[in-house]
Amino acid sequence: MNAGEGGASGGPSDAASGGALAGGFEQLWKALAPIGRDDRTGGYHRYSWTPAHRECERWFRDEAERRDLTVEADGNGNLVAWWRPDPTRVTGGVVTGSHLDSVPDGGGYDGPLGVVSAFAALDAIRAAGSGGGTAGGTAGGAGRTRPLGIAVFAEEEGARFGVPCLGSRLLTGALEPNRARELRDADGVPLTDAMERAGVPADLGPAPDLLQAPSAFVELHVEQGRALADLGEPVGLARDIWPHGRWRFEFGGRADHAGTAAMADRHDPMLTYAMTALAANKRARLTQARTTFGRVQVEPNATNAVPSLVRAWLDARAADEAGLDALVEEIRRQAGDRAQRDGTRLEVHPESWTPRVEFDVRLRDRLAARLGAPPVLSTQAGHDAGILAAAGIPAAMLFVRNPTGVSHAPEEHAEPADCLAGVDALAAVLTDLLAG
Amino acid sequence: MNAGEGGASGGPSDAASGGALAGGFEQLWKALAPIGRDDRTGGYHRYSWTPAHRECERWFRDEAERRDLTVEADGNGNLVAWWRPDPTRVTGGVVTGSHLDSVPDGGGYDGPLGVVSAFAALDAIRAAGSGGGTAGGTAGGAGRTRPLGIAVFAEEEGARFGVPCLGSRLLTGALEPNRARELRDADGVPLTDAMERAGVPADLGPAPDLLQAPSAFVELHVEQGRALADLGEPVGLARDIWPHGRWRFEFGGRADHAGTAAMADRHDPMLTYAMTALAANKRARLTQARTTFGRVQVEPNATNAVPSLVRAWLDARAADEAGLDALVEEIRRQAGDRAQRDGTRLEVHPESWTPRVEFDVRLRDRLAARLGAPPVLSTQAGHDAGILAAAGIPAAMLFVRNPTGVSHAPEEHAEPADCLAGVDALAAVLTDLLAG
Repeated sequence: MNAGEGGASGGPSDAASGGALAGGFEQLWKALAPIGRDDRTGGYHRYSWTPAHRECERWFRDEAERRDLTVEADGNGNLVAWWRPDPTRVTGGVVTGSHLDSVPDGGGYDGPLGVVSAFAALDAIRAAGSGGGTAGGTAGGAGRTRPLGIAVFAEEEGARFGVPCLGSRLLTGALEPNRARELRDADGVPLTDAMERAGVPADLGPAPDLLQAPSAFVELHVEQGRALADLGEPVGLARDIWPHGRWRFEFGGRADHAGTAAMADRHDPMLTYAMTALAANKRARLTQARTTFGRVQVEPNATNAVPSLVRAWLDARAADEAGLDALVEEIRRQAGDRAQRDGTRLEVHPESWTPRVEFDVRLRDRLAARLGAPPVLSTQAGHDAGILAAAGIPAAMLFVRNPTGVSHAPEEHAEPADCLAGVDALAAVLTDLLAG
Repeated sequence: MNAGEGGASGGPSDAASGGALAGGFEQLWKALAPIGRDDRTGGYHRYSWTPAHRECERWFRDEAERRDLTVEADGNGNLVAWWRPDPTRVTGGVVTGSHLDSVPDGGGYDGPLGVVSAFAALDAIRAAGSGGGTAGGTAGGAGRTRPLGIAVFAEEEGARFGVPCLGSRLLTGALEPNRARELRDADGVPLTDAMERAGVPADLGPAPDLLQAPSAFVELHVEQGRALADLGEPVGLARDIWPHGRWRFEFGGRADHAGTAAMADRHDPMLTYAMTALAANKRARLTQARTTFGRVQVEPNATNAVPSLVRAWLDARAADEAGLDALVEEIRRQAGDRAQRDGTRLEVHPESWTPRVEFDVRLRDRLAARLGAPPVLSTQAGHDAGILAAAGIPAAMLFVRNPTGVSHAPEEHAEPADCLAGVDALAAVLTDLLAG
């Protein structure tokens, strides 16, 4: 496909600039790849505002500087690198990008692929605009007056502070700053302390100036399922995001000696939890939904002590909001019934809730037309693009094929050729949006 | 009961010295009670060779010094404070004592009650021997030539390094020093490093000189069940210790995204674990045994990731060894069957195994006669007395009533009057054994 509307020599997919594109992408990727990687598992540990994550941000600032972009930050830890070919035009730009934080031992593509692809797409657009010549100058943008922003949103995974898309939620006002100020990481460090210890100014709250009323936001992301692999397509578009949320289940019992306490005398919250985990799985299978208990804390967590407390987090998602409510309610009911039998106590605390998001239909149709009608997919994963869409910003997502569909794990992958197809598609739609 | 065979004025239970006993016990208890206590829960955190545990050991050395006892140590972290009324007689003594380490958020009585009671009993014996006068002199022991040792065994709970009764196992040669050298705590610190960082010389291995071929070992311990409470008796004797052990179950799966991975495509080890925890509980109830999964580690332990690994420790105990083998085998079989259904992998690693211990019958009968035939109980808990008994040392245990039976938890308790009854009984049997 031809991405360079204004370029006489064709877009990044032609042979000459395609080679430059591959080299540029590879160089960007190689610099970022080792940061925060566990050599034993191959997985990544890039929790927000830890040294590994800060190094990723430094990489981002370096790449922005190399391209003469202006990096701006808000008080929520979000960053945007701006290319403003017409310096008098500041608002109404097109924003792309993703995030650089990871889940524990996560894959290398979820987040970073969208940021690396954004730089590579910008390079391709500039190269195309300047007749396929040198990248790096602003001359290539002479015919396109909208600014282009490359965004990195903070704490997208919620792996450190428990609320996914924390940065974009704060930026758009979807999350109260006071609620965010109460968030603590597993070591009890408050959010703002973590930011300030990392040298990131913390001034939580809505920050409309960062994105400057964009005309569109486009996030490129590795697919987190096998739909494109099954269809044999390298790139797809998002239709909607399932509603999803997190609930903290606290099962309270009574600590006791693992040897001497008779089974009948115990109030063992591990049993209540175990039955709840099985019930959640069964219910999700019956309703074509998703449930996971992936995080568990036990107190006192000693081999020879009946636990006093089991804390376990339910992640639940369904195709529509009524279905999700019914799913969680049924799990809570079964857990409560079992707690009565076990003589334990159940508390359920909702920690986050994201309604269904349908991406802007007009924008999606425009991208679909530009890209030759690629597959359009629902996704079960939350994204900053979904938060921006819910805040009224026209938003769209591009997905890049993931051969196994595995996500949030070291096996997460995208073939180099598919990554380049993703850059190509992103450059094409950005070129279109910047001109329009 | 009269504990002072050689004392004209009667034993510690007579009115005058009973008051001194209560005061002495209270003073000992008060000095130890605040160390390592969590003010929020009231539970104790005295893991071996941490500052709280070291402070307990300093308390022990101070109390020994106050009584002119000689503190000796081995290279395994065990301590004995010796009273040698006849300095020419070193071997064949009587040893009492217990341990000062705790499980996480454990009770204050499990361990310390045996050490505090030992000092209080020594004071009572000396007071009785010197005609009910001042404690602290060695004159009271003139007629008793056997030495009396007050022992503190290291890492009895196994809360830090995973092997319960670590100190007494090393001392008696029940555990290979090379195996102990491989032990690491949750932070990866090797056992000998932990000892040396705490200033405790580490020279692991059999240490017969520490106990000096004792004629008897008597451990006083808070009861860890409700048998004495149900019988209305303050003090009991141990018959045997159930065989027991620890098995590490590793459930391996595949990390994945909690939203996007379809339920049918998952290999979720949490489900295999959950079913195993329920199966273990059911099996223990059916066989009048005990099983507990009280310690769990999840990787990566993120709310929005299907786990790659769940590690869970089974603590299992039964009245006889064949019953215990059958119990664990059945749990392993059910876990393996479920792993096949879940597409997960199961590994089971035995971490410790303690055969049934029957305490020395002659010694028990002698104590029973001295104490007026108190109740004789089986216990499901491991103890250093059991390790010494298995090594051929005549050993016995006294239990002090625990009103709720709760153990390894802040609710663990013994009434002051019952504690004094325990000291009284301990003084009586020690007096008898020292003379014999």
